[in-house]
Formats: sequence, structure tokens, C-alpha cells
Amino acid sequence: MSAMPPIVDGRTRLYGIIGHPIEQVGSPAAFSARFRAAGWNAILLPFDVRPEAFDATVRGLMALGNLDGLIATIPYKFRMPAFMDEVLPTGRIVGAINTMKRAADGRWIGDMFDGRGFIAALARQGHSVKDRRALLLGAGGAGSAVGCAIAEAGAAALTIVDQAPAKAAELATRIRNAFPQCHTQVGAPDPAGADLIVNATPVGMAPEDGLPVALPPLDPATIVFDIIVKDEPTPLQRFARDCGCPILGGRMMLEGQVETMARFFGAPI
Amino acid sequence: MSAMPPIVDGRTRLYGIIGHPIEQVGSPAAFSARFRAAGWNAILLPFDVRPEAFDATVRGLMALGNLDGLIATIPYKFRMPAFMDEVLPTGRIVGAINTMKRAADGRWIGDMFDGRGFIAALARQGHSVKDRRALLLGAGGAGSAVGCAIAEAGAAALTIVDQAPAKAAELATRIRNAFPQCHTQVGAPDPAGADLIVNATPVGMAPEDGLPVALPPLDPATIVFDIIVKDEPTPLQRFARDCGCPILGGRMMLEGQVETMARFFGAPI
Repeated sequence: MSAMPPIVDGRTRLYGIIGHPIEQVGSPAAFSARFRAAGWNAILLPFDVRPEAFDATVRGLMALGNLDGLIATIPYKFRMPAFMDEVLPTGRIVGAINTMKRAADGRWIGDMFDGRGFIAALARQGHSVKDRRALLLGAGGAGSAVGCAIAEAGAAALTIVDQAPAKAAELATRIRNAFPQCHTQVGAPDPAGADLIVNATPVGMAPEDGLPVALPPLDPATIVFDIIVKDEPTPLQRFARDCGCPILGGRMMLEGQVETMARFFGAPI
Repeated sequence: MSAMPPIVDGRTRLYGIIGHPIEQVGSPAAFSARFRAAGWNAILLPFDVRPEAFDATVRGLMALGNLDGLIATIPYKFRMPAFMDEVLPTGRIVGAINTMKRAADGRWIGDMFDGRGFIAALARQGHSVKDRRALLLGAGGAGSAVGCAIAEAGAAALTIVDQAPAKAAELATRIRNAFPQCHTQVGAPDPAGADLIVNATPVGMAPEDGLPVALPPLDPATIVFDIIVKDEPTPLQRFARDCGCPILGGRMMLEGQVETMARFFGAPI
């Protein structure tokens, strides 16, 4: 019988996910199991960072000599760039980051991986956004990351819808500047001509929620991706399924992120 | 096959040991294994707190909503009382604490457990200090805790030796005030009449170290306890063994502490 290594010891390198609340996060179990399976003496912990003590808590964690990386979840993705020595291009365009590491030279580097998980999930289901037309509902943090990833992955066109038109317009400008080959604009929630519809609004999280926008029956060739991490199917997924469309969900997006983020941390997987 | 619970998840409660360096500590493996065996969703982590960022790092850790307790090791036991809302009596007498928890009402409470592990280790080997005479070498943090525990456990007499006589005298006064039934004094490193000799100096940790003080041959009835946590036998242990004395060591003391400290944290063990 070979002895299992201890769960943690004095040499274990620490990673953490910061959020508030924190009990619901799946990253500690998912990442820690991956690290352990790879024989890497590292663990990813839940860190409940209270909003009233945000700055002091984050600076205290980052000062730990054996903490090498952090993930940020709601509501902190937009606050983390200010703590970094360097924000990589995707993080700069989105204006928020969800993954940060201490580089070998001690500098903290952050980037946004939400959109990469989205593209990875599509690819795993045999879909590509290359030369396709996408309709994005929601220009918040998740919507920004997904919209950026769609343009970066070679989409022909991206239409952004948000309750706050100025927010949608600002995101469209940033994406156009970074990825001019993608025709990015603010528009109406009209699925006509869209090959892909993405819900990046929070509508669908509450039990009483309906669709994020009123929609006519969809062309069954339209791919529908609801990035909400919640009991699936969501209202939008049920509607799309009834139209015969392929549907994808938030859990697939999260699964797509774990591997790319773990590699960014330096995990040998 | 029953599924093992994940190593850590979003609901895991955090404990940590703060020190610098931290790689050598055994507490993370020992405590985490105990917590897990008891089915308690909690983990104890190594936290490398750099001296130049001590205050900010400790305050950051204590602000975490899901961190419920800390252990302090070298060089931080003396600095922690200032961070507590309440220091329990033993910690006040010693002037240092090694174990801290957040109480149900949110207040931080700390105490010194080093000496309790010492007494527990003696008891496990069938020894008692009640009505016995002890010679204590070293009046630093560990020596203070052990001296306090010896007097608290009912020793008849305690002689304290330190390179810095004022330090020894100050400790003797504090112990006398708290435990007047024990005849506590500063003295010479003379083993005559001592039932127990304790090394609480760092001498013996370095490979080239000899005895902490020059000693004549010992009465084989004298119990010799070297609290150094290092490759045993230490020079003092070898000397005592050659005299036919029973010997105890730092590892036994640590083992004696784990259970009492874990219970202080609220672990169901």
C-alpha cells in the first residue's frame, strides 16, 4: 500500500479564490483535485473577502510568501487590475481580470479567462465562431469577456445588447479597437441572422425568471449558450431546446476554464 | 466504493500557522489529517508571513470571513497578543501566545499551549511534576511557557537559568505571582536535587552544538526533557541517556499539543 501524501504540509504552495459569498464556489475542489492528481504540492482555497475589508484583505493575502496565485469571482473581478503590476491584453480590453499569479520575478500579473472557457466549451461541442455572426445579451463583466473572446476567435460580426446602451456602446468600441476584423456594433435583441446567441445577463438565475429578452421562434441551426451557472436547463435553454437549437451552459464554460487557468498558474497538467 | 469528500471546497473553514520560514512546520499535515479523520470540513494551512509585512499580512488573514483560527510559530509568538481582543491567563503570564481563534461573537481569543503539550507528553510517559523540583534552562518564549506549565501543574520548586539573568528573574517573578505555591527562583545550572531538567534554549539545534550548559554526571532518576524539535537524540539527550536517565523530546511535546489545540479550535475530536 503506497502512502498518500498529506493533504497539505509546510511546503504546500497556496492559491485561492476570492469572493463574497464564497460557499458556492466550485474552484477549490476542482483545482485542488487537479493539482493533487498531477502530483503538484499546491492547493486552491476559498477566501471569503468581506467588502468592507477588501483592500486590506487582498493586500494581506498577496503579501504571503507562499501564496502564488488568486482567482477573483463576483463581485471582485473589476477591482483586481489595480492590484497588479501587469494586466495582460485580454484583461485590459475587458477591464476586469479573474486570474492572477506572482511571476518568478515577484511581479503580479493578471488576465481574464472567462472568455477562453467559453470558446473552449464551444470547441468541445464541435462548434466554432470563426466567420459566424453572434448576438450577445449583456455587456457586464462576463459579457465583456465573452464578447472579447468571440471577436478574438475570428467571428465575422458581433451585436451587443444591454439594458444600458452606453455600456454596450463602450464595450463595442473597445472590442472594435482591439479586433477590427470583427464587425462589432450595438443592436436590438433580434436573432435574425445570428448563428450564435449568448446570454451573459443575470436573467435566469432567479427561479421566477423568464427569458432575458423577448424572442421569436429561433432557427434550429442557431447555437444558444446561456453562461449562467445554475440549475440547467435555464429558461433560455428550455426555449432554445423547444426550437430544436443546440444548447450550451455555464458549467461547460467553467470546465473549459480550469485547465487554461491551472496552466497559467504553472501547474504541470 | 464510497466517494472521498474533496480535499477542500467552498464551505471549508480555514486555519493556518504563521511563521517565517514556514516550510519546516508539521502542523498543517498533522491538524488537517485530524480534522479530515473527524469528518470536519476544515484545513490548517502554512502561511509564510514575511517580517517586513507582518502587520498587514496578519490583519488581512484575520479579516477573512472563513478563517477561524491561527497558530503562531517562531518568530511571532510574542507579537500576537496585540492582535487579540482577549488573551487567556496562561498567555498573559507567558507574555506570548501560539494559538488564536475567532469566537462565536467575532472576538479573537488567544492562549499559549506550548506548556500544555509538555505536561501532556510527561503524563503520557508516566511522569508527573507534582511536588517535584525542576531545573529549567532558557527563559525565552518556549521556556516561559514550559516554566509556567510546570508551576501550574503543582511542582514544588522551579529553578530558572538563562544567559540573561534579568530575563530569568522577570519570568520567575511572573510565575511566582501566578503560582505562589511553587518555589520559583533564578539559580545556577546545578542539577543537584532536580527531579526534572528541561532544555528550553536553542542549544542543540545546530549540528555542532554541545550541551546547553556544562553538567556533572546525572542521577539516573532525573528526567531529562529536551524540547528541541530536531533530529533526536540531541546532545543533551545523548548525555542523559548515558547517565541512565529517562529522556523526552520536542516531538512528544508537539504531539501533546495537537489535540488540546484542535479542541480549542472547536474540532470534534
